[in-house]
Amino acid sequence: MMGRIACANVLSDLYAMGVTECDNMLMLLSVSTKMTEEERDKVMPLIVKGFKDAAEDGGTSVTGGHTVLNPWIIIGGVATTVCQPNEFIMPDSAVPGDVLVLTKPLGTHMAVTAHQWLDNPERWDKLKLVVTREEVEAAYQEAVLSMATLNRTAAGLLRAFGAHAATDVTGFGLLGHARALAARQRHHVTFVIHNLPLIARTAAMSAACGGGRLLRGTAPETSGGLLLCLPREQAARFCAELRARGRQGALQGWIIGIAEPGPRGARLIERPRVIEVPARGPAPDSPAPGEAPPEGAS
Amino acid sequence: MMGRIACANVLSDLYAMGVTECDNMLMLLSVSTKMTEEERDKVMPLIVKGFKDAAEDGGTSVTGGHTVLNPWIIIGGVATTVCQPNEFIMPDSAVPGDVLVLTKPLGTHMAVTAHQWLDNPERWDKLKLVVTREEVEAAYQEAVLSMATLNRTAAGLLRAFGAHAATDVTGFGLLGHARALAARQRHHVTFVIHNLPLIARTAAMSAACGGGRLLRGTAPETSGGLLLCLPREQAARFCAELRARGRQGALQGWIIGIAEPGPRGARLIERPRVIEVPARGPAPDSPAPGEAPPEGAS
Repeated sequence: MMGRIACANVLSDLYAMGVTECDNMLMLLSVSTKMTEEERDKVMPLIVKGFKDAAEDGGTSVTGGHTVLNPWIIIGGVATTVCQPNEFIMPDSAVPGDVLVLTKPLGTHMAVTAHQWLDNPERWDKLKLVVTREEVEAAYQEAVLSMATLNRTAAGLLRAFGAHAATDVTGFGLLGHARALAARQRHHVTFVIHNLPLIARTAAMSAACGGGRLLRGTAPETSGGLLLCLPREQAARFCAELRARGRQGALQGWIIGIAEPGPRGARLIERPRVIEVPARGPAPDSPAPGEAPPEGAS
Repeated sequence: MMGRIACANVLSDLYAMGVTECDNMLMLLSVSTKMTEEERDKVMPLIVKGFKDAAEDGGTSVTGGHTVLNPWIIIGGVATTVCQPNEFIMPDSAVPGDVLVLTKPLGTHMAVTAHQWLDNPERWDKLKLVVTREEVEAAYQEAVLSMATLNRTAAGLLRAFGAHAATDVTGFGLLGHARALAARQRHHVTFVIHNLPLIARTAAMSAACGGGRLLRGTAPETSGGLLLCLPREQAARFCAELRARGRQGALQGWIIGIAEPGPRGARLIERPRVIEVPARGPAPDSPAPGEAPPEGAS
C-alpha cells in the first residue's frame, strides 16, 4: 500500500490539471541502510510492486528511475505527460460564485498518527478517552484506502464539468493548498470554506491530541483529493457523477465552500461544519482501491 | 560545485543519446536533519544555485521539483526532452571495428576519496608514500571541474560524427557501463578496452590505497564522460573537434578501445595503458567549467 500511495501522490499533480493520461513514470527509491538484508529483500519489492501496480491502474507504466541507499526509506517519483494546451486546465480561472469541491475526505495524517499511538501508552491513554481502538483501526484503514485511490476519475470529469481551477491537497493541508491556488487566480477571489469532510472520528482525535490543526484546515495530508473550483450549477452534478463512477463509495465529492469576490486568499468560516465520512468497512483481503471486492465479500 | 555536478550528472543521460536540448528539469533535494539552521541556510541555497546555474549553462531551466527532510543531503533531479525518433541516437548500433572513445578522464571517485584522506592520519600515512598533498589537491580540483562539466558539447558531436552508440560513465564504472552498453547492441560485439585515461596520480593512489579498482575499470565515477562507439575513421577527428570546442583543455576525448566481433560484453586487456591526464591547474576563482577564466589569469 505504501507503494500505491506514493504512486497515487505522484500522479495526482497531473490529475489536478485535468490530465488523465500519463506518458511516463520514473520511480525514485531509497533503501534504508538500517534495514537488515532480510527486511530489505522482503519490504522493498513489495513497495516497488505497489507503485507499479498503481501506475498500471492509472494506465501508465514505470520505465525508469533511480535507487539509492539512505538512512530513511524514501519512495517517490515523476509523472510526465506531453500534451497540447487544450488538453489540460490551467488552474487560474476561478470566478466569484464558483463552488469549491473536495474529492477525498481530510484526516489521513491524523488517522495514521493515531494508529501509531495505539502502541504508545502515554499517547493512547489520552486518545482512548475520545475514541475506541476499533475506531482508530477503521480510520487508519480508510485513510490507507483513500491515499491509495487515484484522482484519475475526478481528473477525467474536470473538463466535462468545466472546472475553472484545481489543485491536489497534500503537505500544506487544505487551507495551504487553497491559498496557493487562490494566489494564482486571474480574478480576485477569496476561497471561503464552510465544510470539512473528515475521515470518521479524526475530528475527535485531532481535538483531543492533535492540537486541532485538522479543524483549522492546516493538518498535512498525503495523497489527498482534488480541490476544484466549479461553476455553481455544475458542483452537485459533479459530485453525483464522481460517486456513480466509484464502487462501494470509493469515490466521493463534497461541496466545501464558495469563491467570493475579494483579495486572493483562502479562509475557513468560524465554525465549519464537520462532515464525518464513515469508513467503507474492513477491506476483505485489501482489493485495489475502487475495485470490486472478491465475490461473496460484503 | 555540488549542485553543478548533480545537474551535470542528471543531464548526462540525455546527452548520452545525442540530445543537446533539454525541455525541462526538476530538482530533487533533501535537506539534512542534522544540519544546524545556520548551516542549512548557508549551504542549501548554494547547492540550489549551482544546480540552476548548470541548467542555465545547458540551455534549460529548473521549473519544479521536490524538497524533503532526510538525515543525509541528497541532490538530484530529472531531465526531460520530447523529441522525434530521428533526433536521438538509439545506443544499439555498434559494429565490429568501431572505435571506443571516452570524453572525460576516470578517477573522480579516487580523487575525492584521497582528498578526504588528507584529514585521516591512518590513511594519509599510507597514501603519502606515493603522492604529495599538492598532487591530491590538484587531482581533487580536476575531478571537481571534470564532474561539473556538461557532456553537452560531446553530445552535439555524436550525430555529426555518426556515433553508433553511447552511454555515460557513472556509478558502475567504465567496465560496468561498457558491459551494459554492449548488452544492448544489435550486433555481436565485445568492447575491448586498451587505454585508461586517468586524472593525474589517481592510478598511484588507487594502487596504494584504493584496492586497484580504478586500474581494473571497476571504480565508480560521478558525472563521468560519454563512452562512444564511433566508426573507425571518425574517432580521431571526433577527439580533435571536441578538444577544439573546449577552452583551456576543458574538453577532451581519448580513444580507449575497439569493438571486436564476439559475445556482447566488455573487458580490459591485461595491461591497459594508463594515460595520465594532467590537471588543468588551480582554477582562479573557479570559473564555470569550460568557460574562459577572467582576463589576466593564466
